[in-house]
Amino acid sequence: MAKNFAKRSENYSEWYNEIVKRADLAENSDVRGCMVIKPYGYAIWERMKAQLDKMFKETGHQNAYFPLFIPKSYLSKEADHVEGFAKECAVVTHYRLKNDPDGGVVVDPQAKLEEELIVRPTSETIIWNTYKKWIQSYRDLPILVNQWANVVRWEMRTRLFLRTAEFLWQEGHTAHATKQEAVEETEKMLDVYAEFVEKFMAVAVLKGRKTESERFAGALDTYCIEALMQDGKALQAGTSHFLGQNFAKAFDVKFASKEGKQDYVWATSWGVSTRLMGALIMSHSDDLGLVLPPELAPIQVAIIPIYKGEEGLRTISDALSPLIKELKEKNIRVKYDNRDTHKPGWKFSEYEFKGVPIRLALGARDLENGTIEITRRDTSEKKSVSFTAAVAEIEALLPKIQEELLQKSKERMQKTVSHPENFEAFKSALDKGGFVYAHWDGSAETEEQIKKQTKATIRCIPLEQIKEQGACILTGKPSTQKVVFAKAY
Amino acid sequence: MAKNFAKRSENYSEWYNEIVKRADLAENSDVRGCMVIKPYGYAIWERMKAQLDKMFKETGHQNAYFPLFIPKSYLSKEADHVEGFAKECAVVTHYRLKNDPDGGVVVDPQAKLEEELIVRPTSETIIWNTYKKWIQSYRDLPILVNQWANVVRWEMRTRLFLRTAEFLWQEGHTAHATKQEAVEETEKMLDVYAEFVEKFMAVAVLKGRKTESERFAGALDTYCIEALMQDGKALQAGTSHFLGQNFAKAFDVKFASKEGKQDYVWATSWGVSTRLMGALIMSHSDDLGLVLPPELAPIQVAIIPIYKGEEGLRTISDALSPLIKELKEKNIRVKYDNRDTHKPGWKFSEYEFKGVPIRLALGARDLENGTIEITRRDTSEKKSVSFTAAVAEIEALLPKIQEELLQKSKERMQKTVSHPENFEAFKSALDKGGFVYAHWDGSAETEEQIKKQTKATIRCIPLEQIKEQGACILTGKPSTQKVVFAKAY
Repeated sequence: MAKNFAKRSENYSEWYNEIVKRADLAENSDVRGCMVIKPYGYAIWERMKAQLDKMFKETGHQNAYFPLFIPKSYLSKEADHVEGFAKECAVVTHYRLKNDPDGGVVVDPQAKLEEELIVRPTSETIIWNTYKKWIQSYRDLPILVNQWANVVRWEMRTRLFLRTAEFLWQEGHTAHATKQEAVEETEKMLDVYAEFVEKFMAVAVLKGRKTESERFAGALDTYCIEALMQDGKALQAGTSHFLGQNFAKAFDVKFASKEGKQDYVWATSWGVSTRLMGALIMSHSDDLGLVLPPELAPIQVAIIPIYKGEEGLRTISDALSPLIKELKEKNIRVKYDNRDTHKPGWKFSEYEFKGVPIRLALGARDLENGTIEITRRDTSEKKSVSFTAAVAEIEALLPKIQEELLQKSKERMQKTVSHPENFEAFKSALDKGGFVYAHWDGSAETEEQIKKQTKATIRCIPLEQIKEQGACILTGKPSTQKVVFAKAY
Repeated sequence: MAKNFAKRSENYSEWYNEIVKRADLAENSDVRGCMVIKPYGYAIWERMKAQLDKMFKETGHQNAYFPLFIPKSYLSKEADHVEGFAKECAVVTHYRLKNDPDGGVVVDPQAKLEEELIVRPTSETIIWNTYKKWIQSYRDLPILVNQWANVVRWEMRTRLFLRTAEFLWQEGHTAHATKQEAVEETEKMLDVYAEFVEKFMAVAVLKGRKTESERFAGALDTYCIEALMQDGKALQAGTSHFLGQNFAKAFDVKFASKEGKQDYVWATSWGVSTRLMGALIMSHSDDLGLVLPPELAPIQVAIIPIYKGEEGLRTISDALSPLIKELKEKNIRVKYDNRDTHKPGWKFSEYEFKGVPIRLALGARDLENGTIEITRRDTSEKKSVSFTAAVAEIEALLPKIQEELLQKSKERMQKTVSHPENFEAFKSALDKGGFVYAHWDGSAETEEQIKKQTKATIRCIPLEQIKEQGACILTGKPSTQKVVFAKAY
């Protein structure tokens, strides 16, 4: 990669931006805060989407589609929800333009909407308004629906994938007859997310619950998975909310139980977004560019011929042709780059900064020796293997890379974990970066104080942790469980 | 199906609405003109989407994603485009709400956008504004990009799937170095659409080009496929536009040719939408409900046990279990409906009005005889076959149904074709419905006159037709080719 490429250790933020740009993943559009997801970036997102969709369907969910617009009054039906979402959003006030006598077009003042429409920042309100028509009795439950959609939140400071005004996501919205079933669904979907992020993105996560002040607006409980980026900052990778009966009450959704009793319906919602792309990029990439786990790589193996002249290319191509065929038959995503417009060295860098897991190179000398050169993107390890053993080698290498990336991610996360004993140590641990475990007295005031003094937040109350008596790291008040603090994206 | 179900022959429009509703495909939302696509309807759309996406990729296209919003000024950059699209659209003027002292929320007048944003009615402008950054030389061409997205056009009279304010679609946007390549792309994508609609939707189409007045706003040429509904009305099922250099000029997108000359880039765009769902419903369905072609049916085979008591169900289920397993192994989409909450008769109607291609029923007597009952949805044909032959029977029947539905659609379309000799016969042919071939003098005035007098439009100038001398059906002026008129959706 070019020498002027920013280094992780020197300028992490610039390094991230360069990868997004030079790997052709996305770019800022001329519309404030809205990004263009470029074909290579979108191909990665498509693979994430396909896998998640499969997992949602395997757990009994169906897709549906609800309106982009939400009547303004809906947002204020659930008291907490409006506080969280009604503020920074795109408001449609008119439905027509007209020709401007001075050229161009202007908004037609005659075409003002009676009630303004909000471009959905999330769809609980419009969906629960719909569920009211779908639910009469326990026979109509559960409803296990997911939506793939675009949403808009008017962010003031945006960053490609990590925080954009418009982003793509999925939002699951389920309705249940009992509290227990809804809680189980909330937990099940958290597990689906954790499995996806670990198994397919090869990113280690910490599962936990949010504190009251970090909860989704309108939820009784928010579960989350938190990942750790290479700069020691946490990134919330997915959330699953137990909404209790809040939205059912706001939209008057009742059902008749088996026993004929009327009760409000129990709800969950859960979502992940194109933000995961940011997590993916920041988890594995290095100073040479993007590193992709094989499961999500649009191209798993890039093959580059090294030759002189047309005749030379033909010889190499003929030799490679059965290999390429065999790899494709094994559903390995191969790209044979025989373009004569670029030199091999250029191609090597190209696939390097695009994060292609395996690179093959074949030249005249390899051909003579019956060998082929295999290079791993993640470790830069290069070796020459017998041509006839190449397919088997690649077949074994892809899952190995996948596994090792996850292993590295787990180790990196583990290495940052600390349990400081006093507030000074706590502060310096947070400055160093990583997941910092500490006792907290459970009050929102203390949480706020710590945030002010350290710029860190409680990422979660971890699910897997032994209860233990202790004293709050700030106030010294009693606490029964450590929580996890970190600076975060 | 219930007796009060509207008949096609009596009230076609009511019949359509009832199918959409009772087959659980979609419903109107509380947001004017926006629909909710319900899980069963969405599952059909998902199958359409997956197949189209596959065909786009096989023809070299990649997906990407562009912003939902378009700055107002972009719309007026291409003169014809603004006439066609800038008028009826959703306009975002503000980006924040605030608490209303009287309760609820109001638009914050402080948060007015400097330039209004339009919710995309189509994306040529925002995409060509982006392509300007992507294209410098012939090496950057062609760009073969597609986007799956939601778009909004503020329609005054809406109908589920056929015409809604928000709808889902795909829009292909390609950029080429030569006119010829762009024209070839336009034609190639029309062929892809025609193949998809005939092969997967089992709907016959007529391929042609639009007259100047029916062209896409900003196109030099619009190709279309027109389908014929059972009420004799035409429905435009897909369009592919040759945009010439119009958008390249509007957004100043030039490239350096191999010879180093600067020239504007050539463009195409092409799209199909959830409107295809309307075409699908209206093409095959009957007075018993929806009829689905097997290729797109979320459930291809519904299996209904006929039994008394728990023990009875167990016996039937045990007998069916290997059959179900075998069908699934052959990738046949099966639903075994063993719910004890509904009687077999209710289930029969359920799958009938949901258009499931094949229904299997198995009772105690069948079990004794070693037979199973197979019913085709499209013909209502019922037969008892040997239980051991059932899988082979179903495997053969699914493609047969698919093929016969297309055959029927072709015959229906063919039957309506007429070539009236004078204007009176022309008018009554149009009133009867169907594709009416007639000579036209080529002027927009005549086209407009005919539209006024008959409520019919020129659907297309068919691609496959022999040039012949004739006289315009209205004015008697000379003409060299017949065009196709019809009343349309």
